[in-house]
Amino acid sequence: MGVDSGVFDGTESVHNLARALVDFPSPSGGEGELATSLEAALRCASHLEVIRHGNTVAARTDQGFPSRVVWAGHIDTVPANGNDRASVSDGFLGGRGSVDMKSGVAIGVKLAIELTDPSVDVTWIFYDNEEVESAKNGLGLFGAAHPEWVSGDFAIVGEPSNAIVEGGCNGTIRVEVSAAGKRAHSARSWRGLNAIHCAHEILERLVSYQPATVDVDGLAYREGMNAVGIRGGVAGNVIPDDCTVTVNYRFAPDKSVSDAFAHVRELFEGFEVVVVDEAPGAHPGLTHPLVQEFVTTLGVEVAPKYGWTDVARFGEWGIPALHYGPGDPSLAHADDERVEIAQIEACYQGLKSWLGSH
Amino acid sequence: MGVDSGVFDGTESVHNLARALVDFPSPSGGEGELATSLEAALRCASHLEVIRHGNTVAARTDQGFPSRVVWAGHIDTVPANGNDRASVSDGFLGGRGSVDMKSGVAIGVKLAIELTDPSVDVTWIFYDNEEVESAKNGLGLFGAAHPEWVSGDFAIVGEPSNAIVEGGCNGTIRVEVSAAGKRAHSARSWRGLNAIHCAHEILERLVSYQPATVDVDGLAYREGMNAVGIRGGVAGNVIPDDCTVTVNYRFAPDKSVSDAFAHVRELFEGFEVVVVDEAPGAHPGLTHPLVQEFVTTLGVEVAPKYGWTDVARFGEWGIPALHYGPGDPSLAHADDERVEIAQIEACYQGLKSWLGSH
Repeated sequence: MGVDSGVFDGTESVHNLARALVDFPSPSGGEGELATSLEAALRCASHLEVIRHGNTVAARTDQGFPSRVVWAGHIDTVPANGNDRASVSDGFLGGRGSVDMKSGVAIGVKLAIELTDPSVDVTWIFYDNEEVESAKNGLGLFGAAHPEWVSGDFAIVGEPSNAIVEGGCNGTIRVEVSAAGKRAHSARSWRGLNAIHCAHEILERLVSYQPATVDVDGLAYREGMNAVGIRGGVAGNVIPDDCTVTVNYRFAPDKSVSDAFAHVRELFEGFEVVVVDEAPGAHPGLTHPLVQEFVTTLGVEVAPKYGWTDVARFGEWGIPALHYGPGDPSLAHADDERVEIAQIEACYQGLKSWLGSH
Repeated sequence: MGVDSGVFDGTESVHNLARALVDFPSPSGGEGELATSLEAALRCASHLEVIRHGNTVAARTDQGFPSRVVWAGHIDTVPANGNDRASVSDGFLGGRGSVDMKSGVAIGVKLAIELTDPSVDVTWIFYDNEEVESAKNGLGLFGAAHPEWVSGDFAIVGEPSNAIVEGGCNGTIRVEVSAAGKRAHSARSWRGLNAIHCAHEILERLVSYQPATVDVDGLAYREGMNAVGIRGGVAGNVIPDDCTVTVNYRFAPDKSVSDAFAHVRELFEGFEVVVVDEAPGAHPGLTHPLVQEFVTTLGVEVAPKYGWTDVARFGEWGIPALHYGPGDPSLAHADDERVEIAQIEACYQGLKSWLGSH
């Protein structure tokens, strides 16, 4: 490789690179220095064309293959909380970002530089601001500014997936369901109508709701319908005239956002329902030949993805996408976030063998 | 009377004095100037002993009668909201404080000065900070500093009562009832326990609750059990582990605060119940001979009082107390607060005839 650009020492193992990346802080909004180092390292690789947009850095081969794979990973993390330094023990790498997703970034950078002669054209996207509001998302902004750079036959999002393949993702819609009442002094409560008491019916419907499990491309997507917030009350001596329940519906990727909204509106018929935010799900795309080959070559389990991730952006761009990365996603953002080093190596080898042998 | 101390022009009618008092702003915490004018006016009356404590001013006769009546009224108001000037139309006096309770104060001041030779000893207490937290309440602070000044056989609180006699008051207790759960990402809600969904049972018990109506001294006290607040939720994508309902129980004066707490704890058995605040009710004291005589002389309706007021302080001091004042209490604090001038005159004449003829 011969690349030695600070943190990106090409002679290091992928897990040592992951460790160095954990020690290189890049909380959302503070990715500039890491993006600059990354850009410098990628620019040293003559087989890559490199572009930078804000703190998103992308690199691609252009060897004229009929197929192109897009790999994407975010370089930002949630803020550290006493875990800003990498630690290694018992075969695990710990520290902020070890799971979400500096280990995945390490795999992406190392392969981008190493695979000078891949068997398929590859676009590598390292983007910022994934852990904050959608409007700042580096992948979204980069794709809007440079649509030709995010196009391909199939996308791999390097988010932690416990080193198995997770296909697609559930969609999510958040609505506010409100019960109305009439204010009165609580000393004469019979003159009013208690909106919090009326919201009993909203909770009743939530408690009675049986969430579905939906088969899409052979994967079983488990749905969820939950109150994630409730607020009501004017003052300690006032019968409240408003109570609002925030409901989050996680829906299988067989439904559109408007299907999901119709379902929620029907469930809460008789109450005011207002959409707060929404994001479509993503089909797993497992029927695509290139995806089938990827899964076969890796020989790993394929499962549905529940959390909403940037695979849905690729879904919107019409590109099948899946997750493949080291680390247990349930440890993402945890203070004891840590990843099995064997998983980092496994994903690195898995991707390398497929991209090299295809 | 011969007293002419600014706003307290003794030659004016009681409703003109009320009007002048409405035009003299005294929101809670800003009663100083009014207290000073009031003190000056009372000190001009040679039949009165006057004391000032903070912005509370009290005056009393001491003619050696076997009985003493305490009259109390607060001089503060809630802040004005476009109604800082008095207005008179269609037989009504409008403006901030017209109901709660500058008209009552006008009656108290005028009678304190005019009744140079009452038929019973009278203590007049004009106090500050009734509309804010209990710890600042001028009557409470004055009674603690000068217990001999608040003692008597019977107390009249001049709060608006629509010119009828309202006896005693309901007690109030506010508790927080909490449901506990277990956090999880809302994309994998089955891994958590949704505390807001658990709070459904709390609302269920509130909705099913049948509030009692309790007879005390012949008055029917209607109770109430109401959620006055609810809160729960961690973030839009998190199954919440806590949901807290603030419940206000208004209880008849046959119960103590600890009776009320026991009742609420029993109602919400299985949930954590924490007391936020509490205030005892007050017995109407209608069995007291002096109170019976007062009611008979006035010849007005006697009804239970629902809202908690400072009669409960007299209750705690062992003094029977009732409300008698002009104005519809449901208009207190309203932006269109206004009092029928005929009620101001009626209460003034009622009190005057009883205190003068006793």
